[in-house]
Amino acid sequence: MVTINPDRLLEDLASLRKFGACGTGVIRPTLSPEDMKARKWLARRMNEAGLTSTIDGVGNVIGKSSNPGQALLIGSHTDTQPQGGWLDGALGVIYGLEVARALSEHQKTSSYAVDVASWSDEEGTYLGMLGSMSFCGTLSSTDQEQAFNYLDGTALTEALGKAGLTHAPAHKMDRNRYLAYVEAHIEQGPFLEQQSLLIGVVSTIVGMRTYKVNFTGEQNHAGTTPMNYRKDAVQTLFRFATALDKKCSSLAAKHTVWTIGDVKVKPGSPHIVPGEAEMLLQFRDPSEEQLDTMQHMTASLIEKFREEEPVEISLTELTPHNRSAEMDRNVQSILAEAAAAHVPDAWTTMPSGAGHDAQVFAPLLPTGMMFIPSIGGISHNLNENSKESDIVTGCQVLATAAETMLSRTSDEE
Amino acid sequence: MVTINPDRLLEDLASLRKFGACGTGVIRPTLSPEDMKARKWLARRMNEAGLTSTIDGVGNVIGKSSNPGQALLIGSHTDTQPQGGWLDGALGVIYGLEVARALSEHQKTSSYAVDVASWSDEEGTYLGMLGSMSFCGTLSSTDQEQAFNYLDGTALTEALGKAGLTHAPAHKMDRNRYLAYVEAHIEQGPFLEQQSLLIGVVSTIVGMRTYKVNFTGEQNHAGTTPMNYRKDAVQTLFRFATALDKKCSSLAAKHTVWTIGDVKVKPGSPHIVPGEAEMLLQFRDPSEEQLDTMQHMTASLIEKFREEEPVEISLTELTPHNRSAEMDRNVQSILAEAAAAHVPDAWTTMPSGAGHDAQVFAPLLPTGMMFIPSIGGISHNLNENSKESDIVTGCQVLATAAETMLSRTSDEE
Repeated sequence: MVTINPDRLLEDLASLRKFGACGTGVIRPTLSPEDMKARKWLARRMNEAGLTSTIDGVGNVIGKSSNPGQALLIGSHTDTQPQGGWLDGALGVIYGLEVARALSEHQKTSSYAVDVASWSDEEGTYLGMLGSMSFCGTLSSTDQEQAFNYLDGTALTEALGKAGLTHAPAHKMDRNRYLAYVEAHIEQGPFLEQQSLLIGVVSTIVGMRTYKVNFTGEQNHAGTTPMNYRKDAVQTLFRFATALDKKCSSLAAKHTVWTIGDVKVKPGSPHIVPGEAEMLLQFRDPSEEQLDTMQHMTASLIEKFREEEPVEISLTELTPHNRSAEMDRNVQSILAEAAAAHVPDAWTTMPSGAGHDAQVFAPLLPTGMMFIPSIGGISHNLNENSKESDIVTGCQVLATAAETMLSRTSDEE
Repeated sequence: MVTINPDRLLEDLASLRKFGACGTGVIRPTLSPEDMKARKWLARRMNEAGLTSTIDGVGNVIGKSSNPGQALLIGSHTDTQPQGGWLDGALGVIYGLEVARALSEHQKTSSYAVDVASWSDEEGTYLGMLGSMSFCGTLSSTDQEQAFNYLDGTALTEALGKAGLTHAPAHKMDRNRYLAYVEAHIEQGPFLEQQSLLIGVVSTIVGMRTYKVNFTGEQNHAGTTPMNYRKDAVQTLFRFATALDKKCSSLAAKHTVWTIGDVKVKPGSPHIVPGEAEMLLQFRDPSEEQLDTMQHMTASLIEKFREEEPVEISLTELTPHNRSAEMDRNVQSILAEAAAAHVPDAWTTMPSGAGHDAQVFAPLLPTGMMFIPSIGGISHNLNENSKESDIVTGCQVLATAAETMLSRTSDEE
């Protein structure tokens, strides 16, 4: 059985962590100077591993094997949230690099083909899953042309130009080349740690719907406008958000989560009754039917508030609408076998509450995912972390699964 | 009796409106290029009216009469809110200019001394009532040095430098020169219009207390963090704000108002459970005791929430704490007499819900204020407006009151 090199794995993760380091976390949003430095470093490490690397027209870093036969594609992302963790995405990319190296160093597996990729902008600084959608051919050119940085307003086309990628071609997937896509990731939740488990084999990636709710009242002077005369947009938002939370609790299924991630108030002065307010609302669930239920409830609640409050309310669904994605049963079995071989009583099957590039690949290739534990379940946070021993175990499980997948292909030839 | 020139009054208001015009409103925050152009225009108009004008070291535009004897000081402000109205502040400054001109044109009153001023930053882009506090000698140098633009973060010292005022001296009031300070303003509320009244003589300017309430939970992934595991700062803020509004309603006195003017959420992504949230809370009331009651209730509610919620909450009072200010009884009487002479059944005495530069002068000089109606009570809004006939009436009332005040001084000499 192929074995990985734990020191080399951890050293590469530590090197990547330095690009955009901020305390224990990382600030490396897509196409930022630090992100581009990290991509160039990764491309060099891929070449040193014997892969042929390129940075494509949307920022994807793709390292291709020159070995014959069908290849296994292993990837994740190296961009981060505005205040992100050092392993989110980075783990899966460096796992791919280490698995490719480990296979190439063992006689039996040295001819196996593994391609490794870091997909651009999984975190959606411009457009979530930009890189994997571009590679899979499911990105609309309009969406790409209209994408802009939600933090600073820069257009994606301008950012790609500044990163020197204007004339780089966007690489498109050759489906015949790949037998499967596999992605490893930190769990980003508390489940594995709470159950004392080390590996989660993903069954489904949950669907996600995101909305903007706008409240329009009347801007007025905070000292001279009597309370009964006000059309205060933010007070209606508060009442609506409180009522919505109660409705969500009563309608939630086992895996349903709901989040109000942002609120903005205009004009935002202590001396002015707000005329406008908005909030970002998101639902996630493995079932599209359950997501329909949450959406209908929200629309009904808005109707009720419109009748009762002196403030206009509107609901807009934001793209992309991420549908839930089932993982391939055969890939799940191979990941489960590998987990059972290394950590017999410490693995499980579970849904992914987070979105991942794997959901873009799922309709096109046999696709699988696996998780390692997150300490305290903390994620999208500078304090995100995982134990070193868990990081090493996860990579070994992935290497074993990769060996199994590629040996079956090789047997078939 | 002295009479004003309605056309000249309205033309000057129309000219001033052009600096920073935005639709029907004005965007002219303190020390912005448009604000400085308006100040220079005003200084020229003062000189044309026979006054000697200067722009002082904090941006005050002061036009002094060269007539002998004690002077009446008439002022207000020409800066605006981020999205402000064309009359808020501007009205009182141009009234002063027109009253000075009207008095100088009548034989009986031509020797009367009226000084006219536009006080810098009444609206608090950097520091509310900056100019009047500087002129009255009640501005702390620390507050001035630490003030910054709440919209763009620029330091006040830097903004004064860019405006060319670094070496201009800050003018200080000679209390012996002035018999009184009078300020006219739009009501900024609906009361006069609803009662079909044309003049409000102000009895008291309400006190105002402003707080920041901070909520600190735990930032986490919106897809992978189960609902019962979250420490969601913004959900606690929603529940707190809703409970606070109910408590305020039950404790409110006749003139109490409360406003949550802004909410900020960190990091503000639809994919992240917010770790931090804050809101700006303000109470206004003519009574300091009532303001104490509101503050104690807020602190108690925070204690209750701290015990019940997994989120830390803190309350910070923001400076300046504006105490309520009584207007001078003698000045009130003279304004009331003038109103009764011009609009016998259409005036009243009322508190001011808004803060004004007059509250800075009240402890130092006999101080009075008068209001004209605001259409629909709309204020701090691009759509703020008043009827032309009401604007003219207000200025005539002020001119008559000024004549009375100055004639009594002149009789005493």
